[in-house]
Amino acid sequence: MSKKRQLRLGAIIQGPSGNMSAWRHPDAVSDASINVEFVQNLAKQAEKAKFDFLFVADGLYITEQSIPHFLNRFEPITLLSALSLVTQKIGLVATLSTSYSEPFTVARQFASLDHLSGGRAGWNVVTSPLEGSAKNFSRDKHPEHDERYRIASEYLQVAKGLWDSWEKDAFVRNKESGQFFDRDKLHTLNHQGKYYSVQGPLNVGRSPQGRPIVFQAGASDQGKAFASEAADAIYTRQETPELAREFLQDVKRQLVENGRDAEDIRVFQGTSVIIGDTVEDAEQKYQQTAQLVTIDKALEYLGRYFEHYNFSQHDLDAPFPDIGDLGQNSFRSTTDKIKNDAKARGLTLRQAALEAATPRPSFLGTAKDVADGFEHWFTFGATDGFIVRGGTPTAFDDFVEQVIPILQQRGLYRTEYEGNTLRENLGLREPQNQFAVKKALKKEQVSA
Amino acid sequence: MSKKRQLRLGAIIQGPSGNMSAWRHPDAVSDASINVEFVQNLAKQAEKAKFDFLFVADGLYITEQSIPHFLNRFEPITLLSALSLVTQKIGLVATLSTSYSEPFTVARQFASLDHLSGGRAGWNVVTSPLEGSAKNFSRDKHPEHDERYRIASEYLQVAKGLWDSWEKDAFVRNKESGQFFDRDKLHTLNHQGKYYSVQGPLNVGRSPQGRPIVFQAGASDQGKAFASEAADAIYTRQETPELAREFLQDVKRQLVENGRDAEDIRVFQGTSVIIGDTVEDAEQKYQQTAQLVTIDKALEYLGRYFEHYNFSQHDLDAPFPDIGDLGQNSFRSTTDKIKNDAKARGLTLRQAALEAATPRPSFLGTAKDVADGFEHWFTFGATDGFIVRGGTPTAFDDFVEQVIPILQQRGLYRTEYEGNTLRENLGLREPQNQFAVKKALKKEQVSA
Repeated sequence: MSKKRQLRLGAIIQGPSGNMSAWRHPDAVSDASINVEFVQNLAKQAEKAKFDFLFVADGLYITEQSIPHFLNRFEPITLLSALSLVTQKIGLVATLSTSYSEPFTVARQFASLDHLSGGRAGWNVVTSPLEGSAKNFSRDKHPEHDERYRIASEYLQVAKGLWDSWEKDAFVRNKESGQFFDRDKLHTLNHQGKYYSVQGPLNVGRSPQGRPIVFQAGASDQGKAFASEAADAIYTRQETPELAREFLQDVKRQLVENGRDAEDIRVFQGTSVIIGDTVEDAEQKYQQTAQLVTIDKALEYLGRYFEHYNFSQHDLDAPFPDIGDLGQNSFRSTTDKIKNDAKARGLTLRQAALEAATPRPSFLGTAKDVADGFEHWFTFGATDGFIVRGGTPTAFDDFVEQVIPILQQRGLYRTEYEGNTLRENLGLREPQNQFAVKKALKKEQVSA
Repeated sequence: MSKKRQLRLGAIIQGPSGNMSAWRHPDAVSDASINVEFVQNLAKQAEKAKFDFLFVADGLYITEQSIPHFLNRFEPITLLSALSLVTQKIGLVATLSTSYSEPFTVARQFASLDHLSGGRAGWNVVTSPLEGSAKNFSRDKHPEHDERYRIASEYLQVAKGLWDSWEKDAFVRNKESGQFFDRDKLHTLNHQGKYYSVQGPLNVGRSPQGRPIVFQAGASDQGKAFASEAADAIYTRQETPELAREFLQDVKRQLVENGRDAEDIRVFQGTSVIIGDTVEDAEQKYQQTAQLVTIDKALEYLGRYFEHYNFSQHDLDAPFPDIGDLGQNSFRSTTDKIKNDAKARGLTLRQAALEAATPRPSFLGTAKDVADGFEHWFTFGATDGFIVRGGTPTAFDDFVEQVIPILQQRGLYRTEYEGNTLRENLGLREPQNQFAVKKALKKEQVSA
């Protein structure tokens, strides 16, 4: 395909957009995280706007201090399965952790979702940053950061092996002869590894996309290495186009080192947007949402990244306190960023907390400003696309109504879906079946 | 309520109906187990006919010898979630094993399905009869039969505790005051048991039905004891109305012994039906489907219940062979029945295998005959209802079109849904929140 490179977009489903207190906003649907009508409307709106996919984040541990819309929300697999029959073209990407689940079950649920949706399933593989998760899953302790990635790597190997259990045309279903499937096209994994022993085969046939699209969202070195080994897409957040381009190029380099093609991955910047009639109008919308967060809530929010550390014991207007290595085993990249930022810019605890609770949107301004920003990042080679989150409860509506048309007019963004599957719309190749490849190789050797 | 006792019906979703070879039938949709259109149509048809619920069976281990529609089928949670937004009133009951899953995840997925469907989720709790399942889940061995039920019992306790994490009106969402939830109505389980340590709370609010409906399907003594302790409904299969009534009364007696009300459970007979213009016509339809199974396939099918025992090593026309205790740790009640039947009726291996592969439907005849049969079992007090499976690929259509209207004319079966939730339609009480009950008790004691 000599087709022009095209910007790609994902839409976040995650309660009322904005920040942890955005549910208080006059325009917010305050129970959005558990409101069926809300998510159905959002899904249909995003599909009408030709978004590549819906993206659902997740977490496995809450406390009284958790973000309100994390306390009571749909579970991602059930949510996206529910949306599979009321949408036709949009991808359905669910976050699911490898640290507290079984590869057979997870491979099966995603394969099933891929069948139900006609090839639109995606799995955002995470390793669970929250230490407390162990307490909900009968474990003594949360595996440490690097081990979580070793587990995830083997886990993905197992899942991919299970997804290759059946070749595409394994099911013959010949009513006359009585042959239901071709034994030659059934492959039993027999995986025996350090963390998992999984025999297979999977009890779901090869899925419409060959296998679901694999996203990876961790930004640490281990996360990046894992992505370049096993992922089809990355969700990341970089501060500047320069850093983002460096990140993207680094990922692609690692991809090639792993024997893959540089074009075998799509990198997405997670970003929030606020659109106003003027820059001042947009700024005012930002302030309105930011001011919904009290300093107490902001401190709690900050603490969440640092193993629920109690920041309220420190002087609010003194420099950001030294709290050692706390958070290294959970949200490593985020905690590093918060600490480095606070130090570099001399932020007080109060400033750091409020900024963490309501980060300034990367793209804030008029619809044209935001479209310009997207175009710049994209044409500069900083990213393949964006995963968009509204910076206020109505910002996503504004984005769809005002920014998408500009991106379409500029020829940067589709006006029709190119294909029926997420893989086709992301422009990714259909994966080969590892066992079919081995079989073909063997046959070649025999006949040589 | 002084309302007349009413017959209740469930509909099985499980590939092309009939037997393991029914996919070969001229009228069969041969890929029914993985065909989205087929399951959507079936769900809509069952809802139009006012069925109480759809029921999806499951399994976690396949081999080349497995029943064809088990090789490639939708996973139950994803399937029923998908159907949740394209149906409005019908219950959605998914089978899921307690032996190879995490209570936090499963409680969460069912609670989420309950929210998505507006209170129509049901969980058929099984303990996985298939020995091989262990091999797909990194376990050394399949837990033995009685231990599986001890695990299941603790598992259910955990799930119910998690479902009680939030009281019904815990989420206040007061935009003015900033109060999102009422701390008094949040309950952290802190379960520490023999098999599970689960802290909670669940990150899903109390579900529309209070908690999803719990089905139990094992017919062994342990299964029955488990049901009377923890289930809202039972799926069983008894040979005669007399045995069924005895079973039902025994369950209700155990219920009362467990401090529950006899009316707190619904017993369903799993049954297959074939309807013809005459009895001969129905018999001919049965024979047509039965003859699709070759003796080789029938032996394989039989072997499945006995840990994949290879029956083909025995003389087909000699009496059913003595194979000792094989199968005691898997499908105990089924294997006992097959062995006892063969002995009592002097069946050869061939006869036993063909009969196992295509059991004669409990209800075979004209529509009036089948309606009479249902009425007799029901009025005799043998059952609260039936879970219906077609004995041929088109038998379910016949049942809906011909038998349902007769049952409705006789006033045995609803013409409109009574409520919006599965619990309402089954006529079951809303469960109390265990923590709210304790709290109220404590308050009473303090004020006394």
